Amino acid sequence: MSEKYAIGVDFGTLSARALVVRASDGAELGEAVFEYTHSVMERELPCGIKLCHNSALQDPADYLEALGKVIPEAMKTAGVDKEDICGIGVDFTNCTLIPVYSDGTPLCFDEKYREEPHAYAKLWKHHAALDEAEELTRIAAERGEDFLSRYGGRISCEWVFPKVWEILKRAPEVYRDTDRFVEAGDWVTWMLTGKEVHAPSYAGYKALWSADEGYPDTEFFASLDERMRDIVGTKISKDILLDNVKAGVIGERGAWLTSLCEGTPVAVAMPDGHSPLPAMNITEAGELAIILGTSAPHIVHSERAVSVPGVCGYAKYGALPGVYTYEAGQACLGDGYDRFVRNFVPESYSEQARAEGINIHKFLREKAKKLRPGESGLICLDWFNGNRSVLVDDRLTGMILGLSLSTRPEEIYRALIEASAFGSRMIIENFEEHGVPIKSVCVAGGIARKDEMMMQIYADVMGREIKVAGSTQAAALGSAIYAAVAGGAYDSVVKASEKMSKPVHKVYYPNEDNRIVYEGLFEEYKRLHDYFGRGGNDVMRRMADMRR
Amino acid sequence: MSEKYAIGVDFGTLSARALVVRASDGAELGEAVFEYTHSVMERELPCGIKLCHNSALQDPADYLEALGKVIPEAMKTAGVDKEDICGIGVDFTNCTLIPVYSDGTPLCFDEKYREEPHAYAKLWKHHAALDEAEELTRIAAERGEDFLSRYGGRISCEWVFPKVWEILKRAPEVYRDTDRFVEAGDWVTWMLTGKEVHAPSYAGYKALWSADEGYPDTEFFASLDERMRDIVGTKISKDILLDNVKAGVIGERGAWLTSLCEGTPVAVAMPDGHSPLPAMNITEAGELAIILGTSAPHIVHSERAVSVPGVCGYAKYGALPGVYTYEAGQACLGDGYDRFVRNFVPESYSEQARAEGINIHKFLREKAKKLRPGESGLICLDWFNGNRSVLVDDRLTGMILGLSLSTRPEEIYRALIEASAFGSRMIIENFEEHGVPIKSVCVAGGIARKDEMMMQIYADVMGREIKVAGSTQAAALGSAIYAAVAGGAYDSVVKASEKMSKPVHKVYYPNEDNRIVYEGLFEEYKRLHDYFGRGGNDVMRRMADMRR
Repeated sequence: MSEKYAIGVDFGTLSARALVVRASDGAELGEAVFEYTHSVMERELPCGIKLCHNSALQDPADYLEALGKVIPEAMKTAGVDKEDICGIGVDFTNCTLIPVYSDGTPLCFDEKYREEPHAYAKLWKHHAALDEAEELTRIAAERGEDFLSRYGGRISCEWVFPKVWEILKRAPEVYRDTDRFVEAGDWVTWMLTGKEVHAPSYAGYKALWSADEGYPDTEFFASLDERMRDIVGTKISKDILLDNVKAGVIGERGAWLTSLCEGTPVAVAMPDGHSPLPAMNITEAGELAIILGTSAPHIVHSERAVSVPGVCGYAKYGALPGVYTYEAGQACLGDGYDRFVRNFVPESYSEQARAEGINIHKFLREKAKKLRPGESGLICLDWFNGNRSVLVDDRLTGMILGLSLSTRPEEIYRALIEASAFGSRMIIENFEEHGVPIKSVCVAGGIARKDEMMMQIYADVMGREIKVAGSTQAAALGSAIYAAVAGGAYDSVVKASEKMSKPVHKVYYPNEDNRIVYEGLFEEYKRLHDYFGRGGNDVMRRMADMRR
Repeated sequence: MSEKYAIGVDFGTLSARALVVRASDGAELGEAVFEYTHSVMERELPCGIKLCHNSALQDPADYLEALGKVIPEAMKTAGVDKEDICGIGVDFTNCTLIPVYSDGTPLCFDEKYREEPHAYAKLWKHHAALDEAEELTRIAAERGEDFLSRYGGRISCEWVFPKVWEILKRAPEVYRDTDRFVEAGDWVTWMLTGKEVHAPSYAGYKALWSADEGYPDTEFFASLDERMRDIVGTKISKDILLDNVKAGVIGERGAWLTSLCEGTPVAVAMPDGHSPLPAMNITEAGELAIILGTSAPHIVHSERAVSVPGVCGYAKYGALPGVYTYEAGQACLGDGYDRFVRNFVPESYSEQARAEGINIHKFLREKAKKLRPGESGLICLDWFNGNRSVLVDDRLTGMILGLSLSTRPEEIYRALIEASAFGSRMIIENFEEHGVPIKSVCVAGGIARKDEMMMQIYADVMGREIKVAGSTQAAALGSAIYAAVAGGAYDSVVKASEKMSKPVHKVYYPNEDNRIVYEGLFEEYKRLHDYFGRGGNDVMRRMADMRR
């Protein structure tokens, strides 16, 4: 039998990436990236229509364009024949929600809705449904809804139902005309297979569904708005794929979109924060995976279902029998560094970086790594996109303290990285305090390979070994692993992970001197975290409200 | 009798400026500016010797160079003969302290001390004597020293004795070899006249002296360090000019330095924060002058001597009989905006500003003025150089809160300006609460004329009319007014001010809608101010200590 290959496509916030790997050992043979034509729309639609504050929309046409570019290009680089592809899998940011007609066509493709913001894909970090999220949480708590305990007690505005409710309130005709609200990852498999299939992971983390309990009942939805009473089973699908990772096979449209063969197996879509785990061979309880990207999901398996306040939730999603997978996360990581670099680094630095022929991030890192812990006198709360864990409060904002006339950009850059590390440590401590032990920490994502200073800071702040994932494309590799299972190359994700995952790239060990300094700084961080995040002073929330 | 002219020379943080005016009406005829060759030395001496953290040194040679450039140039522009100059006056940043030999030669001019940082002028914002200032305050409080009540209860590290004590501790040989520690303003009149004369204003605000009580006694100084017991009368002059504004006349060296005639009267030096008052015709109680420059002195006359916590101090200094002049201030204003612009404004903005042919400050203002109060969601504590009033704590640092991924540079720029306005309002409320009524607010300094948005924000934040000074060079004009009095053109500063001051340029009135929004923001500001500044959380002090 000839060698088989699998394709993983990772849809991130700004770009999509395809990876072609060998099914037998996961060898990465070809790769291609495409930056979305419309990127993230935060201020206006291309037609000039202004968006309301906290919007983050995308045009699903970009996802299709990406498929058409990255797959053929990665295939070409890999030098693999399409007949030898055993399967394709995708992972996607989530909850990224698209209102579509019954045939899967997004409403924003319809001439009638081209100028209607609510007809577009609401990206995960669309934060305009803050009020709806808080109201939903309040009503659920009043009604004593059990599901709240799975989600750390608070429902985020990033999730399905606050976003849907926002559409119902602001654009009722879009709500009326929508046949399905669908996660973008599920929408891509739908486009590939021609069949609507819903992933248990998306539903489990973002749509209040669980394998054991299903969705909340009609009375709950009616208590939000009578028009939402029967939403489940109509506009929200009840058909969720369980105990199988195969969503279908590539159909006519899928073949046309991807230049792959009709009949190629398609895996069920994965959250982009979860797909790296098989690529890191994390299939057991207690191994925390931190995925450093635009944001930073923190994923860990556990044998027990316990209520952990301040996490995004836990779910069982079939691929790994017998374990509950917990998700927590930071709503902003690379995004924060990028914005800082784009908006707050001076011309003189840009010029020097160009003169040295290096990227501005690298330029700042070179300067920042010469600083000792505490030397800048700075401490940050990096809540530029709210705080997802452990405070679950999208109204919280960023803070920088300790600024002086001599503060330099590289000092803030380093303080932002330290803030990310402190935030991760908060998440770890919170898991451990609530019955989810963390035995080890493994980090994936491009930043983990590029930024050695950051990884050392993580080790020093956490006082733990930090293992860096072997694959630089862990999300796409994880999707390819699912693809290989869907294509029958393995009979389980656990087995495929064993063979196809990459060994750890490098381990960072804490430096004892730095650890002691960071121990003190973490105490300062916690004090500020609790003061601004737990009611000591709600100025961030009040300022955010004033802003709106 | 032919028309007479007066010269005022204003020595600021980065440059010196001469102004030639007509004595009869203050008409400004000629002006020249010189940026100091060595500017402010914060990281190293020109020879490469590294400076300790928080240093801010200057080379007094720059002051002499400035005299030689700005006076002839301003005279030339004015088209005035040197024989028609009736007097010259200078104002200077303070406390800017120079260790000199008995003939007035700075120790740093001596080959032996060229590489010794402690032999240079310690600029007002040299903050390396933090420990000495705190220790001095503590000892004074323990001993029940009365002088503390004149200075709001705390002695700043910017002042004479903490700086002197720092020299004694770090460079005892410099202390030993110094014959006089002299304020830079007094040093300039010394260079001009050949005679050592000390201004009561410098001594009153920065050297713990008062006309009624003199200096603290020898036991106090001995309790700091036995070697300082007899400092007053030896290394610190007791000869302070009272009830006269004439320091002397230009001598041989002075004529050589300035190209003016020997025998030209020289006025006693003034603090640069005080010299604008006569230029604004502020000679009565209750009229607050805010001088918007690198920092922002707040000066007000009062008929009563009361203890106001958190002010820099009050003094009688003769020129205005029967009034006590109170000084408070913000340790950082234009300095903060400049550093922000230099270090945290991106290349794209610099390029756009150049393309539009405008200065980057103006470019940011154009963007910032389109924002509504509260729209950015940002609030700052602008303590980038510590907080001079009303907290008197040089260890406090800056904070920005409310940052999001969409925060833009112009939003921070505006928030910095709002923070300055909130800080001014704190000072005003503090004066009023402690028996120094503020009837009106008049603002001087280049920024006051250039930035209409800022002035409107001041009016809106304070809920008061803001009068902008008529002269754009109020400090230099004030020095020229003193010069005219020293030269006999008037028999009092009050009379000279009446004739030579400029009428108000413009009055800004509060906008009621904005005032209401700022009322709410000021409440947030105060809460943060007190939390970080009054012991709620001493994180800023701890981080500053760690930094050192």
